[in-house]
Amino acid sequence: MQDIDIITYLKNKKELVDVALGKYFADKNSFFDTMYYSVDSGKRIRPILAIASYESNGGRDIDAIMPVACGLELIHTYSLIHDDLPAMDNDDFRRGKASAHKQYNEAIAILSGDGLFAYAFELFSMGDTSDEKLAVINAVSEVVGPKGVVYGQVLDISENERPQPKMLRRIHLNKTAKFIAVSIQAGAIMARATSEKIAGLYQAGICLGMLFQYTDDILDVVGKKGELGKTPGKDKASGKIAAPGIYGIEGARFRAARYAALAKGKFLRFGSDFNILVVLTDFVLNRTY
Amino acid sequence: MQDIDIITYLKNKKELVDVALGKYFADKNSFFDTMYYSVDSGKRIRPILAIASYESNGGRDIDAIMPVACGLELIHTYSLIHDDLPAMDNDDFRRGKASAHKQYNEAIAILSGDGLFAYAFELFSMGDTSDEKLAVINAVSEVVGPKGVVYGQVLDISENERPQPKMLRRIHLNKTAKFIAVSIQAGAIMARATSEKIAGLYQAGICLGMLFQYTDDILDVVGKKGELGKTPGKDKASGKIAAPGIYGIEGARFRAARYAALAKGKFLRFGSDFNILVVLTDFVLNRTY
Repeated sequence: MQDIDIITYLKNKKELVDVALGKYFADKNSFFDTMYYSVDSGKRIRPILAIASYESNGGRDIDAIMPVACGLELIHTYSLIHDDLPAMDNDDFRRGKASAHKQYNEAIAILSGDGLFAYAFELFSMGDTSDEKLAVINAVSEVVGPKGVVYGQVLDISENERPQPKMLRRIHLNKTAKFIAVSIQAGAIMARATSEKIAGLYQAGICLGMLFQYTDDILDVVGKKGELGKTPGKDKASGKIAAPGIYGIEGARFRAARYAALAKGKFLRFGSDFNILVVLTDFVLNRTY
Repeated sequence: MQDIDIITYLKNKKELVDVALGKYFADKNSFFDTMYYSVDSGKRIRPILAIASYESNGGRDIDAIMPVACGLELIHTYSLIHDDLPAMDNDDFRRGKASAHKQYNEAIAILSGDGLFAYAFELFSMGDTSDEKLAVINAVSEVVGPKGVVYGQVLDISENERPQPKMLRRIHLNKTAKFIAVSIQAGAIMARATSEKIAGLYQAGICLGMLFQYTDDILDVVGKKGELGKTPGKDKASGKIAAPGIYGIEGARFRAARYAALAKGKFLRFGSDFNILVVLTDFVLNRTY
């Protein structure tokens, strides 16, 4: 496991994803260029997780997983654009540059999100027909909509006068963890893993996703704008429920480490082929951006 | 053809769609109730077209077409919610009641649209796997995104200082006609029609869709708010490109009739099984709401 140079791994996979995304946005109408403004940066965590899971499950055809991986990134980007809108989190800074509604205007930002969402499903369904593609679409659409990401955002923007651990968990689970989990699940589906593995990896992904949101909350307190590419200190300023506000920084760090341990345990159950997901989990635990 | 009582036909199909929609929104989390506020009304034109096309193509299993039909209605509803937002058309009245952002707030309206969009794809992909479902998802996602509805809305809200017939056609085609056409196409796909029929019905649907937008533009001038369920006079007030502004009311009516004739000719090519689509076309031509 120590053999994996995670920084190089992430860099190489991100390059592959970036090249594919560039291709999917080339030679289209002018609005694709507008949408690409918001797509053209980002850590590519979800597509990398999908690819890592695909390859860990024995998948070998990078061209088969890439539209799925990139579709996940488009959905993530759409959710960021809409979350940043003045009516929502009102954040002018994202991925190291002006948010879509500051770069263009609110209408174009809303439509950019809508367009990316639709285009993701076009990518998921492109090419030859296969049962796996339909399974991915079903899993992803369930998790990014009103049973997942959208519901999490609804809870997140609702008045929560007395933040409680239970509500924090509900928001983190719906807004972040399910989407991280389904990214890993999608890779397993595309690699035609057994249904037991697909379900087990989803559960591991939930733990990784909870960890991801905990470190996000922690970085919102201790992170630097230059590294984060977004505005820190937002949770407290907006009165949002976040882990440090409930458990303190040290308490949040403790719980993040526990989610990391849980995730790693679940990945390791499937054997050494899944080492990369263990290493990725440690990377998320220790990330500074 | 005179035998078809189109009013009764529409009423019966609408009831079926409404019952199915009610079922899809029952016993979910509270945000489904919020979304249902915007869903719970509407003419159900797109789902009815999908069902009519499905049955014309020999489809017999209403349970197979219903998730597709309802998914189309959810996407249509989502696009209305987003179009009505203050940053877009800023319309406070829709489907005979307050728009989503007036009933709730902007954030909830944006998220309602996002949630409906995602849920549509969950409906499209639910149940047993089939090549037809994936084909529907591919066709619909292409047409409702940045190559269709979203692009049409982008053009529609852009500054069009000198409205030209060419731009009018481009907006109508992208914003309305492709979505009407794909609704008919989806019914044909689900009924396993030949690829020739699927393509031909899409083309007929484009003509019907252009007709639909022409009558929409005309009703914006001559229609009554009580019948329309939305605010008339919006196109002129907002300086939008619309058919009467370019061709005059009589010119727009003439062109609407021509699109109706084109659509009917294309439907009739496929024989008397498609009579219902011919009658539906006449209904759209003569509609007052």
